[in-house]
Amino acid sequence: MASKPKKQIIHEAAVRLFRDKGYSATSMRDLADAVNLKASSLYNHISSKEEVLKDICFDNAHRFLDGMKEVEAMQGTATEKVEALLRLHIRAATGDAASVMAFNDEWRHLSNPLLGEFMALRKDYESRFLAILNAGMQAGQFQKIEPIIALHTIFSSIRWLHDWFQPGKKLTAEEVEEHVVRMLRDGLAADNQ
Amino acid sequence: MASKPKKQIIHEAAVRLFRDKGYSATSMRDLADAVNLKASSLYNHISSKEEVLKDICFDNAHRFLDGMKEVEAMQGTATEKVEALLRLHIRAATGDAASVMAFNDEWRHLSNPLLGEFMALRKDYESRFLAILNAGMQAGQFQKIEPIIALHTIFSSIRWLHDWFQPGKKLTAEEVEEHVVRMLRDGLAADNQ
Repeated sequence: MASKPKKQIIHEAAVRLFRDKGYSATSMRDLADAVNLKASSLYNHISSKEEVLKDICFDNAHRFLDGMKEVEAMQGTATEKVEALLRLHIRAATGDAASVMAFNDEWRHLSNPLLGEFMALRKDYESRFLAILNAGMQAGQFQKIEPIIALHTIFSSIRWLHDWFQPGKKLTAEEVEEHVVRMLRDGLAADNQ
Repeated sequence: MASKPKKQIIHEAAVRLFRDKGYSATSMRDLADAVNLKASSLYNHISSKEEVLKDICFDNAHRFLDGMKEVEAMQGTATEKVEALLRLHIRAATGDAASVMAFNDEWRHLSNPLLGEFMALRKDYESRFLAILNAGMQAGQFQKIEPIIALHTIFSSIRWLHDWFQPGKKLTAEEVEEHVVRMLRDGLAADNQ
């Protein structure tokens, strides 16, 4: 088996440290210790902990934007599109918990211009999600809920899964996904659906 | 108008500081500055910042447990009981944002035995909420969703309101409450309700 590239090993260790200690409390020294390097050698691989944070945040942002692009291109009702987006969020949370956790909580530590770029991607994603919610409201597929409230409720309602879900426990990732989708999709649906 | 007791002023300033800087980064000196006291005088009113954190956490825990007691004593279906609990959570978030924020995020900084006592209250509340969800599932009032998933989804789905809601903006607290209740209550409801 080929060994992992050093950069990937450093990246994964950083995600675990950011999750366990928080970004601010994690030092380059901690990161060097976690991957058995001297701090001076670590700088041969990455220039700063912010570089790692940047990679986590932008990789995740692009993962969600790529998913959004696929959903927008789908033939289907707004209900089906929202369901597909719910599944995207839930699979990220159950499949790559540490990375999503760092992405949820730690992006505020980016400095400009990265912070501004990241926030623009985030804003773009939210606007496109809102547009789908609005379309569903106007088509009478959803009940009367302010789209911005539906959006925040959806985003927030999933923000425990990455912390709670453990593969091999009572419920599989697929079961968890079905139950959460059921609750949020049907909460949005108009009675006549 | 009678002036507020000094302890209440200190308490409110601490809640704002914990919210803005986080509990760990807040010093007794910050708190003294915020209420225009010398650090040495502050100790005449409170013994530590943990004392203030303890008050916030336990006041909130008892607020939710008192609400649970009322709901358990209600005549009504599980759907009505869950709706009443949803309203309790939403009103806390829109009515006392700073305090709820400190309660949501900062209780982990309590030290034992307070931490253990607080976690026992929290566990008690969750078990009683789960019992109501289980009763609703068994009575066929709710759709098939694992009660533990419904519980976490409900708790989590409200955990943006305290940060987002501002009185006097487009939506009133009552409107926000109706929309969030609609989405979560109806997401839980069986189709035949």
